[in-house]
Amino acid sequence: RISWISDIIVVVSPENIETMKSIIEKYGHKRVMVVKGGITRHRSIFNGLKVFSENEFSNHLLQKPEVVIIHDAVRPFVEEDILSKVVMAAKEHGAAGAIRPLVSTVIASAADGCLDHSLERARYRASEMPQAFLFDIIYEAYQQCTDYDLDYGTECLHLALKYCKTNAKLVEGTADLWKVTYKRDLYAAESIIKDNLSQQVCVITNVKEDVAQVGFLLHESLKSQIKVEAVSISLSKNDTHLQNIFSGQCYNFVCVNDKKYAIQETQQLVDMLEKSNIPLLYPVVLISVHLDFSENTSFSIGVEELTRIKKFAREARKKNILVYGLLIQ
Amino acid sequence: RISWISDIIVVVSPENIETMKSIIEKYGHKRVMVVKGGITRHRSIFNGLKVFSENEFSNHLLQKPEVVIIHDAVRPFVEEDILSKVVMAAKEHGAAGAIRPLVSTVIASAADGCLDHSLERARYRASEMPQAFLFDIIYEAYQQCTDYDLDYGTECLHLALKYCKTNAKLVEGTADLWKVTYKRDLYAAESIIKDNLSQQVCVITNVKEDVAQVGFLLHESLKSQIKVEAVSISLSKNDTHLQNIFSGQCYNFVCVNDKKYAIQETQQLVDMLEKSNIPLLYPVVLISVHLDFSENTSFSIGVEELTRIKKFAREARKKNILVYGLLIQ
Repeated sequence: RISWISDIIVVVSPENIETMKSIIEKYGHKRVMVVKGGITRHRSIFNGLKVFSENEFSNHLLQKPEVVIIHDAVRPFVEEDILSKVVMAAKEHGAAGAIRPLVSTVIASAADGCLDHSLERARYRASEMPQAFLFDIIYEAYQQCTDYDLDYGTECLHLALKYCKTNAKLVEGTADLWKVTYKRDLYAAESIIKDNLSQQVCVITNVKEDVAQVGFLLHESLKSQIKVEAVSISLSKNDTHLQNIFSGQCYNFVCVNDKKYAIQETQQLVDMLEKSNIPLLYPVVLISVHLDFSENTSFSIGVEELTRIKKFAREARKKNILVYGLLIQ
Repeated sequence: RISWISDIIVVVSPENIETMKSIIEKYGHKRVMVVKGGITRHRSIFNGLKVFSENEFSNHLLQKPEVVIIHDAVRPFVEEDILSKVVMAAKEHGAAGAIRPLVSTVIASAADGCLDHSLERARYRASEMPQAFLFDIIYEAYQQCTDYDLDYGTECLHLALKYCKTNAKLVEGTADLWKVTYKRDLYAAESIIKDNLSQQVCVITNVKEDVAQVGFLLHESLKSQIKVEAVSISLSKNDTHLQNIFSGQCYNFVCVNDKKYAIQETQQLVDMLEKSNIPLLYPVVLISVHLDFSENTSFSIGVEELTRIKKFAREARKKNILVYGLLIQ
């Protein structure tokens, strides 16, 4: 997704390595290497870093990077902007990490389970991910770590400070960087994905006048509620406007067609979507509207049509494209 | 909801006082007094406490309690268990508050925006709500507060410690006590409510054999997926089993009936539900299944039936009861 990242090391617990490899293959992720995790957070990160310099990995030793980003999979909504900010700050300061304001006051408890003291909330921050480091600094820090650090530590910025005297630059992150921890966080994550995917819809019609007119009217009635693009094209040509929409990460399409050509043109659109790689991460929704302008059609013909769409939709679903058919007589 | 709480003081910003009063009236909340909030958290809490002792409120002065609980509306999932625990601990220690483990490491930043130091995560806790205090302790603390405390402080336990030398007992709370802060938290909250409401369903039929048989089969097919109660009763009698289910906070009902009596019995059930006060806080879902055993019914009669249910459902909805009709021929 981000061209200036040269390699991605995914550190995974031994029992999940095969699953992770199949995910990487299924979605065609590039530049990714899977490495076995350790029994603690710091041991896992250290394993990931070793790929760039230790002999035990020499058969696939990667080129040592200037800057390395450390990130958690439990923070799935990391944007290019914050990655770029921590990398630039790490280049200048040696280390950098995303922070967020504290939501609750933090307190220290005494041995008897009573309050010892409370921290002034405004003076402290929650340390989040991503964090970035000059590779030599963080690698040096991990090499000097004690076993106690590796087993009980939780904070990479702390290691850079303790072992390399590097005070990390703190960069304000977005609220979406929170850590998916509880069941409720899964619901929250789902809502964010749905929100993102439903920002935009593209209405596609062919150039035939009565069909294009329907597309125009649909665009008019939707545009007050959602971002809508409307395109009238001949799908057989390689339309650059449509290519632009595909690369703009639109996930919702309404394809309006004369019934006679509907299945054929929907098929073409599915092929184009598949080639565009859009459906790799999130499902694409494609509503195929079949307009029947003839006056004397029987109900049974409509049913036959719907059966064809259903069969077609079953195939498209395997490519992560959800096709819905709507027959309008 | 909790009988041992004698009074509830709701502190509300001036512009929302009327809205709050209408909510209290609409849902029939008892033992509630609305008090005007201040411009900061501590000033609002102090206003709430004053109701129990200051002359300016003398026209409705309430009896001073031994223990007072302080809670935030942004933590809507507070259970009786944690309330009881903090109250008992406050009786013994003078003050007590709910805590949770920290999700992220907490760090202190220096003036230049760089890391100063990080806290060892295991030694600290997030201070959550509810908190409880001996009234005399927390009121004394607020009376001694400086303006700086009132304007910038965030932690009541800190005030009890600073001004009354009371080290609050810390009580481990549940994960559901988190603070609804961001938009994603609203989705998370919604998911928790839906989860809670969908734990249980009650299948109600009358005592007629063929109808009771349908209820029995439905119970059998649902019981592997959800907690199901099945009751066969004559609704005209005041059934104690049904009363028990109502008081057990079940929010989902499937009422199976012979078509002839369906609307009438559904009406009786809606009346009973309304009297039980269940629909006051959360919507009750009632699926009214109309069984038609006769063999020669036309389609149009079914439509007429559905129109009646629709009209009836519109009325029930005003009482927070969502009625759905299902006609089976």
